[in-house]
Parts: sequence; C-alpha cells; structure tokens
Amino acid sequence: MATVIAGFTMSLDGFIAHPDDSSEGLFDWFDSGDTEFVFPDGKFTVHVSPPTAMVLRDIAQTAGAFVTGRRMFDIAHGWGGKHPLNVPTFVVSHSMPELPERWPGDHAPFTFVIDASDGTDGVENAIEQAKKVAGDKTVILAGANITQQALKAGLLDEIEIDLVPVLLGRGIRLFEYLGVEPIKLERTIAVLAPEVTHLRFRVKREREG
Amino acid sequence: MATVIAGFTMSLDGFIAHPDDSSEGLFDWFDSGDTEFVFPDGKFTVHVSPPTAMVLRDIAQTAGAFVTGRRMFDIAHGWGGKHPLNVPTFVVSHSMPELPERWPGDHAPFTFVIDASDGTDGVENAIEQAKKVAGDKTVILAGANITQQALKAGLLDEIEIDLVPVLLGRGIRLFEYLGVEPIKLERTIAVLAPEVTHLRFRVKREREG
Repeated sequence: MATVIAGFTMSLDGFIAHPDDSSEGLFDWFDSGDTEFVFPDGKFTVHVSPPTAMVLRDIAQTAGAFVTGRRMFDIAHGWGGKHPLNVPTFVVSHSMPELPERWPGDHAPFTFVIDASDGTDGVENAIEQAKKVAGDKTVILAGANITQQALKAGLLDEIEIDLVPVLLGRGIRLFEYLGVEPIKLERTIAVLAPEVTHLRFRVKREREG
Repeated sequence: MATVIAGFTMSLDGFIAHPDDSSEGLFDWFDSGDTEFVFPDGKFTVHVSPPTAMVLRDIAQTAGAFVTGRRMFDIAHGWGGKHPLNVPTFVVSHSMPELPERWPGDHAPFTFVIDASDGTDGVENAIEQAKKVAGDKTVILAGANITQQALKAGLLDEIEIDLVPVLLGRGIRLFEYLGVEPIKLERTIAVLAPEVTHLRFRVKREREG
C-alpha cells in the first residue's frame, strides 16, 4: 500500500511562503552545491550538495503519484503541463480549470478531483485515487491545506520537512492552527546538508500512544 | 565577549507551550533515556539519551548568565529561588515582584531589570548586564517575547531549538509574526537524539548577506 508523504520547504519560524505566495529565500538550497540533479520531467535542474542530491534522488525514485490543490496548481501555472516529478497528478479543485491549448488534448497527467461544496471529500477522494495509481510507491502531497485535511482525516503517513535556516517574520504557515488534538510523530530520517536540514517524520496513530 | 543564545523546546508546528502555558508532551525528552543528568542547581534531574546528555552538559558548562521575562519567572514560581542553571539570572519586569520570605534576604541570584513603561529598554539593559557577568561564557535567553526583542535589537547571536516530534495544533508560538525583515541563519550544530532534534543556528548579521 502506498505511503502518503507531505513534503515542504519551511523556514525555522514555520513559513512555507511569503504573504504574496512568493518563495524568495526559501529555495536557496536548490542552488547550493555542485551536484546536478535533474527532476524526472527532464527539465527542472538544480545544483545542490551531495546529501541533498541523495534526498532528491530518493524522492524522485520512490514517487508514484502527486496530490495538490488548485491554488498551488494555479500558482505554478500547471508546471507547464507536467509536474517535475513526472507522475500522475491529482488536483483537488472546486471546478475544472481552463487548460492551455498547447497542452496534450487529454490533459494527462492531470486528474482534477472536484471537491464537494462543503470541501470535505475532495482530498480523501484524490488520495484514494492516487494510492491506487502509486501501488507500492509513494503518494506525495503538497500544499498546506491539502496536508491539514489529510492529517485530520488520518490519511497522512509521513511528513518531510526541508528546514531552511531563515526567519521570514511573516508569511503563509505550514501548520496554522490545525484544530486537532496533539499528534505524535517519530523522526525517522535526518539528513544534514549545508543549507538545509532534511527531516522525515512518521505520523503515529492514536493507538500507538 | 559573551555569546547570547536563545534556547527553546519547540513542536514541529512551532509551539513552545499549550494555550494555558502548560507544556504537556513537549518535554518527554527529559525522560527518554538511561543517562542521568543533574542540572547545576543540584536538584533538577533528568534521564535522557547519551546525545541529549552531551547537549545538556555543554549548555550547563558554558552558561554564564540567564535572562528571562517576568512571565516565565512567575510561571516557574522563581524556580524555588534558583534557576536550574545556577547562574546569575536577570528578569525583565515592569515592577519588583514580592518574593517569598524563605528566599535569601538579598534575593540572589536574581536581578530584576525594570522595563520602561514603553517596554523598549529592559531587554537591552538586562542583556548588557548579563554579558558583563558572563564574561567569556554564554548568556542564555528564555521566553518568546525576550527573544523577539533581542532579535529586533540585533543582540541575539544564536538560537538553540530542541525540536520535538509532535504537532500540538494550538498554543503559544516561539516565532509569532516578528515584524522584521527576513533574518538569515546558519545551522552550526545538529545533534540527533531519539526523542528530540537539537539544532543550533547562528544569526547572520545584515552585512553578511
């Protein structure tokens, strides 16, 4: 069964973007070394430290599906028609977007999962579809809102935080008030790179105490 | 010249206490191993993992003074008359507290630094006094408010985060909106213990870019 992992680059004060959705200063680690890493789409290329390259290779090799929200899809302009991880991508949305004509006619690899008007079932539905497609590989979640909903629904297995050494002071928080009881985690991986600390946590289920 | 270090135990979602100031679930790492560590006051004893014991020994051996706010002093009931680090302690306050009679007559080791009515100079004053006392040792800051003021005044050299694997969901944040421009940090130390990730960051000065 596919493991569901939410991944984020986060400042030490807990922000994943500036108030205007820009990310200046958060992704300096994508240009922090001499090791080239080309994402599976064959286009997005970064130059990172060896430990970060290892983390990225692992994510790319194990990813089987990607789930995000309409907001991130719009901000990224649909990644030009294909997410850098180059896996089937599920976008939770209230409506079908108008897609550029230059994209493939069947809009692959995007599947738009239409959310109910009360916003309750889109994420669960998208994760269920993504897990079927991913098989034994992982489902990667992106977006604070999607992650919060997955956490509340008990569908999140792991959280990957790429902790960057900066205090932004203001912006969009990964973990705004979750409206949940405390959730215990277990740190399973820690990779120390010069410009980023890669931390992986497993979400403990309630009965684990 | 003394290094000024702010130290905190923080949940992954950035909280240092519950909404009611309690800290349930944040300090499980104080009872997470077989290595006994007795704080310099000779009273406060914890049982931790070997890596955490190393971090605690280092903090205890290098601490030369402690600066905190009246709020923490009151919550801790003045640590019974002596902070566990057993160093000269400066408490920023709007007024002199009434101290229990069973404490030493001169109220040592506490120095109450009275804040101006506009709350601007108490922290700077306290840190200046603490640095003189600490000499070549470190000045430890505690309290979110004190730390934020020290950061804004450019008086903070390092931040120690003991990151615990839990999402609290709500509570008191270490880094509430700071009201500052982004501040770059450098991770200088990372010690991986089973129940906590000890991360030390150096605050970069503006001219370092």
